[in-house]
Amino acid sequence: MEKQKFKTISENIIINSLLKKLNFNKTGTFNFENDAGYLNISNNYKTVVTTDTITEKIDFFQNDSPDSIAHKLISVNLSDLSAMGSIPKCYTLNLSIPSFIDFSWIKKFTERLFLLQKKYNIYLLGGDISKSKEISISGTFFGAAKLKNILSQNKCSIGDDIWVTGNLGNSYLGYKIFKKSKLKITEKNIKIFKNYYLYPNPCMFGVIASKFISAAVDISDGFYGDLNKILNNKVGATIKSKKIPISNNLRNIILDNNSIIKIDDILNWGDDYQLLFTADKKFQNKLQYLAKKNNTRLTNVGSIIKLKGIFDDSMSLIKNYSSFDHFS
Amino acid sequence: MEKQKFKTISENIIINSLLKKLNFNKTGTFNFENDAGYLNISNNYKTVVTTDTITEKIDFFQNDSPDSIAHKLISVNLSDLSAMGSIPKCYTLNLSIPSFIDFSWIKKFTERLFLLQKKYNIYLLGGDISKSKEISISGTFFGAAKLKNILSQNKCSIGDDIWVTGNLGNSYLGYKIFKKSKLKITEKNIKIFKNYYLYPNPCMFGVIASKFISAAVDISDGFYGDLNKILNNKVGATIKSKKIPISNNLRNIILDNNSIIKIDDILNWGDDYQLLFTADKKFQNKLQYLAKKNNTRLTNVGSIIKLKGIFDDSMSLIKNYSSFDHFS
Repeated sequence: MEKQKFKTISENIIINSLLKKLNFNKTGTFNFENDAGYLNISNNYKTVVTTDTITEKIDFFQNDSPDSIAHKLISVNLSDLSAMGSIPKCYTLNLSIPSFIDFSWIKKFTERLFLLQKKYNIYLLGGDISKSKEISISGTFFGAAKLKNILSQNKCSIGDDIWVTGNLGNSYLGYKIFKKSKLKITEKNIKIFKNYYLYPNPCMFGVIASKFISAAVDISDGFYGDLNKILNNKVGATIKSKKIPISNNLRNIILDNNSIIKIDDILNWGDDYQLLFTADKKFQNKLQYLAKKNNTRLTNVGSIIKLKGIFDDSMSLIKNYSSFDHFS
Repeated sequence: MEKQKFKTISENIIINSLLKKLNFNKTGTFNFENDAGYLNISNNYKTVVTTDTITEKIDFFQNDSPDSIAHKLISVNLSDLSAMGSIPKCYTLNLSIPSFIDFSWIKKFTERLFLLQKKYNIYLLGGDISKSKEISISGTFFGAAKLKNILSQNKCSIGDDIWVTGNLGNSYLGYKIFKKSKLKITEKNIKIFKNYYLYPNPCMFGVIASKFISAAVDISDGFYGDLNKILNNKVGATIKSKKIPISNNLRNIILDNNSIIKIDDILNWGDDYQLLFTADKKFQNKLQYLAKKNNTRLTNVGSIIKLKGIFDDSMSLIKNYSSFDHFS
């Protein structure tokens, strides 16, 4: 990068010419001319709050495009709101950026935020900007949910079905492509799977189906790691491993690259932002109806059992799992 | 620092042994075992939100102690809530820390958070931890206020008094001491003023007096810079410069160090976290009564006038001001 070409940009220019577009003129944002803002969430609802920081080298590559970084910030956080069964409302942004970041970078970043705000009907409530050595962006997202519909990870019951939305592993393959693993894969698929990694979309099914869900988590740390959060060392699960949803396209690529892409690695990887949830068996039809209506793939992958641990169909313990620790 | 001595610490250990103490077992935190939490703010109140990132080299020195960094994080944000007239309730924390940060560092950091949480009656709602090149910590703070009492920066009227709480410049002198400016100053004062810089306390007068305040801002960017936010290029101010509250102790040190410590620099410096606000003249007695009752120094430093600009007693334009831009 030609750093010397980049102009110095001031906080005020960023706020006035780029960020102000994102407040959608909502009351409570004070047009970003205040020390703080306030939330407009109606009295029958609780405000659900989630926050995530995404950082260079951990959550994205240093040279990833700003629109991909913006996309990830929104998806990571909306996925958490969905897992809580809450309707996204607004968010605050803490933008820590190095001096080589220029106006056009931030412009692209905010343009993607704008697009996704329109898509998910959310606005920017406030935030701050500071200089840093590396790109580090925190988003704190606010959703609304009736108290009785707020989902948590630890409320499953023995006998509940275990469900997964969408397909797993698409983002993982995208990541492997970026890591330049030598893969047998077509140019078309390279493009498709890179996009899954760069522009993951949250599954908002948790908002729609919260009434029928007993416990939910978004798969951000890997299928088994996140399933463990639901089990919480209190109950166990049987998993029909072959039912775990993986697209035919990815299955074929796995077959072609047997030694490099492993199912186990896919199941220990997050970043697809699909939901893993449990529900009483009596809601099977309702959930499948809702999924179909909302064009969401929904797969029944197993059941909650009394015996602690995660077992396969033949009740053998599945040992080979680990949760992704963002911190190690 | 002997980096090789530091142990690797996992996200789970930090959460379970240090951060969980900070949720005060409040409903809505889910004991940090969830993707998100929810706010418990009663129906008659709006939720006020403010967020600030503090970063190495910008907001603190690299080797500042963790308790000072924790102290600043809380003060910066509570000061903003006070300027909005809202009662602090809880906060979320985004902790981005380099690998050389060890368990004892985080322990000290969280111990100070704990102390200040007790003092201001707030709890930790949730957050996240990630690895980074430098220490960067975002706090998003939630307060409660009745809609009619939420303060903003831009609602002053011509004829309003301009008030300042506490004393200005204490943190600035502390900063100069750290910068090793050659100062004539006693050992005792070195200690006192270093502490003003390291452990600034927010002035929570905005919460108590919000009913009588027309516009408020916390002085984080310098007296003149922050006054400008209130004036908003729509009205002006006359300032009785000699009335601007500076402690006798600091005044004497200024006299002893005439060429190094300048009043102008003090007035362009923030970090005292005092409030600057405007109020109708008819509230003078009420405000002074409230200030006395709450042991808060309160000084009337001027008035809002129709003529744009900031003027001294003799109506000369005060030109020499600038706002501190965190980003430049």
